[in-house]
Amino acid sequence: MELAQRLDRLGTETAFSVSQAAADWAAQGNRVYPFHLGDIDLPTPPNIVEALDKAIADGLTGYCPAAGIPLLREALAEDIGAKRGMAVGPEQVTVHPGGKPVIGRFIQTLMDPGDEVLYPNPGYPIYESQIEYYGGTARPYRYLPTDAGFAIDLEQLKSMVGPATKAIIYNDLQNPIGAESTEAERRAVADLARRHNLWVLSDEAYFEMRYSGSSHSIAALPGMAERTVILYTFSKKFAMTGWRLGCAVAPRKVSEAFAKLNTNDESCTTHFVQRAGVEAIRGDQSGPRAILAELQARRDATAELLNSMPGVSVAKPNATFYLFPDVTGAMASKGITELPDFATEALHATGVSFCTRLHFGRPQPGEDRSYARFAYSGLPVDDIREGLGRLKAWLEL
Amino acid sequence: MELAQRLDRLGTETAFSVSQAAADWAAQGNRVYPFHLGDIDLPTPPNIVEALDKAIADGLTGYCPAAGIPLLREALAEDIGAKRGMAVGPEQVTVHPGGKPVIGRFIQTLMDPGDEVLYPNPGYPIYESQIEYYGGTARPYRYLPTDAGFAIDLEQLKSMVGPATKAIIYNDLQNPIGAESTEAERRAVADLARRHNLWVLSDEAYFEMRYSGSSHSIAALPGMAERTVILYTFSKKFAMTGWRLGCAVAPRKVSEAFAKLNTNDESCTTHFVQRAGVEAIRGDQSGPRAILAELQARRDATAELLNSMPGVSVAKPNATFYLFPDVTGAMASKGITELPDFATEALHATGVSFCTRLHFGRPQPGEDRSYARFAYSGLPVDDIREGLGRLKAWLEL
Ligand SMILES: Cc1ncc(COP(=O)(O)O)c(C=O)c1O
Ligand SMILES: Cc1ncc(COP(=O)(O)O)c(C=O)c1O
Repeated sequence: MELAQRLDRLGTETAFSVSQAAADWAAQGNRVYPFHLGDIDLPTPPNIVEALDKAIADGLTGYCPAAGIPLLREALAEDIGAKRGMAVGPEQVTVHPGGKPVIGRFIQTLMDPGDEVLYPNPGYPIYESQIEYYGGTARPYRYLPTDAGFAIDLEQLKSMVGPATKAIIYNDLQNPIGAESTEAERRAVADLARRHNLWVLSDEAYFEMRYSGSSHSIAALPGMAERTVILYTFSKKFAMTGWRLGCAVAPRKVSEAFAKLNTNDESCTTHFVQRAGVEAIRGDQSGPRAILAELQARRDATAELLNSMPGVSVAKPNATFYLFPDVTGAMASKGITELPDFATEALHATGVSFCTRLHFGRPQPGEDRSYARFAYSGLPVDDIREGLGRLKAWLEL
Repeated sequence: MELAQRLDRLGTETAFSVSQAAADWAAQGNRVYPFHLGDIDLPTPPNIVEALDKAIADGLTGYCPAAGIPLLREALAEDIGAKRGMAVGPEQVTVHPGGKPVIGRFIQTLMDPGDEVLYPNPGYPIYESQIEYYGGTARPYRYLPTDAGFAIDLEQLKSMVGPATKAIIYNDLQNPIGAESTEAERRAVADLARRHNLWVLSDEAYFEMRYSGSSHSIAALPGMAERTVILYTFSKKFAMTGWRLGCAVAPRKVSEAFAKLNTNDESCTTHFVQRAGVEAIRGDQSGPRAILAELQARRDATAELLNSMPGVSVAKPNATFYLFPDVTGAMASKGITELPDFATEALHATGVSFCTRLHFGRPQPGEDRSYARFAYSGLPVDDIREGLGRLKAWLEL
């Protein structure tokens, strides 16, 4: 009795194998410094937890509407619209158990089998997985290193659009590379979408996870709202990764399809978690501010130490909680040619655990530099200094 | 810009339109007696809520494994196995945001496009929706009225199995009709599955929602564990519908596919909700016992009153919280020929809101009786008596 063939096309997050390797190493009595996880070790702000308790006490333990509770849809519409300088109505907002479900909903709703979808590589691995799973062709576009970090290779991106292209997935404030579009780059992507009548998934998971400057949404550019779905999540800003709360902002008919998918998939997102989400958005904002301040200190420590290592160099992005250092030189001086070997040797020599470029899609033709991803959201500054100090010492050996 | 064609095959729960009609009627200042909802108006037992609070205080607010936290998988394996008299290992258990997601996971994992899947009609509408959505052929099997309630038309079911048949969806303790298989019926379904090498989705949402006698799982019959996926939910037994917590018990390779689908769809089920689920299973059981006692009193009141109405007759099932009365006579004496008209006139004349047979699939050829579904889980005995008293008076007019 075979499983269904569609499963052959389903990808996964291979980064979980790094968690496993780290856990195994720790289980043998070793100290591990977890830079591999896009999770946050800080508590959710207390006002949000109190709102959850109150919601349960108030009896919000039953089913609720598939699209989300009206109070939360209104709060999100107002907040997301205001922060992006665009008008968003509550009927455009659907609530989901996290931001991740929006990726699959987008693909299911807007891509037919045989359609092509362009997606960032290196990038969040679920994009490619969902495109292929639902019978589309996943076409990776690339980034090029710049003085300030990375930029989309716009020439390549433009050259990839053809008659079968249906959508672009765009992750400004990027996981894993931490890149941020310039205004010109964002406009170029928008122009391409408009010119070729493409849908855009704007993955804005890190929109408010930034330390200076301000974020901008492609959805706010002229002619874009009607072709863009915004992925929004409570996970990062409010340290709520395990709560599973996110939303999509989409044109109305797309929202209606998303709600119908919710009815089929999980009926609704946890009722009292939604009510707590209203407090997160509308209540006291000192919690997310403190989270951001802490992450900024971690970023500074991580970037400083990485850049002090021989054969390692990294830009210091103003957003996300990832650094994507070029480790080509370090590998060469260690005589290591493969990224997985580098990660394993580093773990065993120093306890520092990290993902590599290979966890974020297959390398593209012509890629000749090697990168690792350091997430600094999962450990305090002291541990960052200690762990990266050991990594540095190992590289200096 | 059209939406994807697959959405044309996506169904929904039309029962939500009944909620809307009831809400509209209430908004006009009318008293509504909600018999249309499969939801529960009772609070979740306090020990479960306390466990949730403790989990949050303990920092269980981050991501957790896609298949579920080990503690919960172990508790479920032990409990589900013990209650069914079968061996279940934790690796066979995957946790999901409700029981409903198991339906789509089952179809995605075990049905290829073009395969046929047999499903109960009247039945839970998501079965048909998910079969069709993923490109299968949904083939409804029927129930026949008996002295004790309803029985599967086994002759029809057997006649439907052909070379393209891949799976049977089986909902013993049935929504909407409240039917329960005899031992012989359950064995007949199992024989059919074994003989034709079919997968079985055993929807056991109401397995422990019973007032007398004991429930039995088709998965415990010889040769069935390796071809059966059990849908389990916390929703009903623990009055946790809005918490979104359920699980699947499946052969190991199926479980692995389910976990991979979780990784793609929502990463994991809410972390602290899973920890509270451990308390629900392993902790004090006085909460679910009290819920059951209250529902039994409601069942008795509802059945007694329905049977006292002219042209209405209903069996009194020992499980579920649904009654599925034959209202053919009552409609005739009111001169109403269509079920939706009957429901609307009843709502407007008496405030009693209920679903009809038509919310649970298209009528099958030869169906000549009319049925309504009364869910008694959403209102206290006093309201049941008051509302059904009004319905009775209207029918006696
Ligand atoms: C780029 C990106 N998109 C979406 C998500 C989804 O996060 P969640 O489902 O927790 O909202 C993540 C999480 O790591 C991410 O990095
Ligand atoms: C037959 C049946 N299966 C599954 C479910 C799923 O319930 P949940 O997703 O809340 O676990 C229900 C809920 O009404 C049901 O009636």
